[in-house]
Amino acid sequence: MKIDGVAYRTIWPAADGWSVEIIDQTKLPHAFAVARLTTLEEAAHAIRAMLVRGAPLIGATAAYGVALALRADASDASLDRACDALLATRPTAVNLRWALERMRRHLHALPEGARAAAAYAEAAAVADEDVGINRAIGEHGAALIREAAARKAPGEPVNVLTHCNAGWLATVDWGTALAPIYVAFEQGIPLHVWVDETRPRNQGASLTAWELNHHGVPHTVIADNVGGHLMQHGKVDLCIVGTDRTTATGDVCNKIGTYLKALAAHDNGVPFYVGLPSPTIDWRMRDGVREIPIEERDGREVTDLTGKTADGRIETVRVTPDGSPVANYGFDVTPARLVTALITERGVCPATEAGLLGLFPEHRAVA
Amino acid sequence: MKIDGVAYRTIWPAADGWSVEIIDQTKLPHAFAVARLTTLEEAAHAIRAMLVRGAPLIGATAAYGVALALRADASDASLDRACDALLATRPTAVNLRWALERMRRHLHALPEGARAAAAYAEAAAVADEDVGINRAIGEHGAALIREAAARKAPGEPVNVLTHCNAGWLATVDWGTALAPIYVAFEQGIPLHVWVDETRPRNQGASLTAWELNHHGVPHTVIADNVGGHLMQHGKVDLCIVGTDRTTATGDVCNKIGTYLKALAAHDNGVPFYVGLPSPTIDWRMRDGVREIPIEERDGREVTDLTGKTADGRIETVRVTPDGSPVANYGFDVTPARLVTALITERGVCPATEAGLLGLFPEHRAVA
Repeated sequence: MKIDGVAYRTIWPAADGWSVEIIDQTKLPHAFAVARLTTLEEAAHAIRAMLVRGAPLIGATAAYGVALALRADASDASLDRACDALLATRPTAVNLRWALERMRRHLHALPEGARAAAAYAEAAAVADEDVGINRAIGEHGAALIREAAARKAPGEPVNVLTHCNAGWLATVDWGTALAPIYVAFEQGIPLHVWVDETRPRNQGASLTAWELNHHGVPHTVIADNVGGHLMQHGKVDLCIVGTDRTTATGDVCNKIGTYLKALAAHDNGVPFYVGLPSPTIDWRMRDGVREIPIEERDGREVTDLTGKTADGRIETVRVTPDGSPVANYGFDVTPARLVTALITERGVCPATEAGLLGLFPEHRAVA
Repeated sequence: MKIDGVAYRTIWPAADGWSVEIIDQTKLPHAFAVARLTTLEEAAHAIRAMLVRGAPLIGATAAYGVALALRADASDASLDRACDALLATRPTAVNLRWALERMRRHLHALPEGARAAAAYAEAAAVADEDVGINRAIGEHGAALIREAAARKAPGEPVNVLTHCNAGWLATVDWGTALAPIYVAFEQGIPLHVWVDETRPRNQGASLTAWELNHHGVPHTVIADNVGGHLMQHGKVDLCIVGTDRTTATGDVCNKIGTYLKALAAHDNGVPFYVGLPSPTIDWRMRDGVREIPIEERDGREVTDLTGKTADGRIETVRVTPDGSPVANYGFDVTPARLVTALITERGVCPATEAGLLGLFPEHRAVA
């Protein structure tokens, strides 16, 4: 998407034809910086230190990391070493494993002399496929926003509420939950986005707000506590969120607090949509609340906040009193009964097993 | 309540017999400091600059401010000037107006020579009455916690979730929503409190956590997004929150985000209680969502956070990106249908008109 009028992806081949450039997301939202990756080690560091984050973007970065490694040494040993090193950066990331297995399988079969060029081409394909999936989610979701616009007075903006960051910064481009918003914006539908700040890591206030602001999409940042009040007063036309994992029955595991917004949407008759690329569907799971393990994360994400002082310094401050324990659950599960529909790259479906199998019939046997 | 073993109120007559001491709450939670009020001007400043906050505590501070003014000059003009100056500090505070009218009426009738002593006595009565009301709320609410404890394995703590700060720091002592917790704790009922941090002003993370920690009550600070997940997994036995205004029909206006917790409690069969002194009941109002105006506050409460750096400095940092607008609604309304019961100084009742009138029959004609 655009940053102040200039089109960007989150990762791209540099002008020199071989190094790789990324947006250094650790600097956001207070500074915009591009980092250049020239070695396997730099690619691994970019993933480990979260210069890049978001499952699809991590996968694409790992793919380019393999290309950088093979440019230096295209041997089998080098290929294996690169894949192992990259896999170790974020051991639980599903897309990372998937991208590396794809690269290893594809490249292992080639003669050494052909591997480096093929690796760059395959990494580009990984990135382009992510863009294609997200663009498709955007097209399908934008139709829902267009329907909402048709129910409003001409020119009155459709108010969309979103939680966390499932935007283009978490992918190669477009995002998942935000893709429908970007496509609708591109189509000229008047809209305004309520951005949950998304404590404790504040990905809404920092990343989603930054994305929307620089692309030019009207938005307002709110505390996570506000959405229910807005829905009670007709100030939200629909919600769109992302998901980290979706069960075969349509339960949605997403950033902590998503469930509370889904309850408020249900209580006020506001449609609640989830945008998802189909790889996030876990076809083996049937009861999200019972089966999906919820990660407990470092309490410092709750106690400590980093921001910019009035005179421009970046400081980290502790907001809780010394001696008070904290707990930090990363995700919650929104039961399918609270989800109006799922927006996938193949179309929109009810958040039910039948709905998902209708779009993905190849999973009938497995489910 | 206690601070590290020593009993405190939030306001008390100093040992010199005439000045008044308060806890300077602007320093919390990172420092504990007592401020001494010696003049009307200092009392007015303490209210205006929020060294004291919470409706009952503001009322008591104003009453003592009148006493300080009359000690210097007990004339009618001085009494009027004191009441006017104090009323202007927080124009919308109901308790402030009530306390000042009570002081003016009581003192105006007395000869000048008797006024100063009578003012101190009346201020002490205002403070003591608040303590009595809150203690009664505590007794009635503790019975509900005791019932919850009886349903658990012996020794297993009752998990109570609360939002914002309706603790002793907002009153003269005991608090409203936290009074049942303090009484239950005093009675030896094992309990643990989930403390919502309560964005955007963080009164939970800063004040409620500080109170509980220094009194010795087990507690854990969580992001506001977490409560729904905890309730889905049986980790909350009951919720108790405060209220700024309650309708005659039992709708509850409290800190923004309360409604979301009430929805989650309802969805998971967790009792949701509201602790309130009866003066917060607005007997003229019947539909909280439609009738209660919701204050929009300074957006800097959302964008800027103050805390302590690792090396002990107090800094304020901006966490949102430059250029992103924010909205800051201070309160929301929880419909009575989501409230299990109201805990008042006269007892516990259903959140209905009949329930409230059963405890407060003197309002039958008005309602």
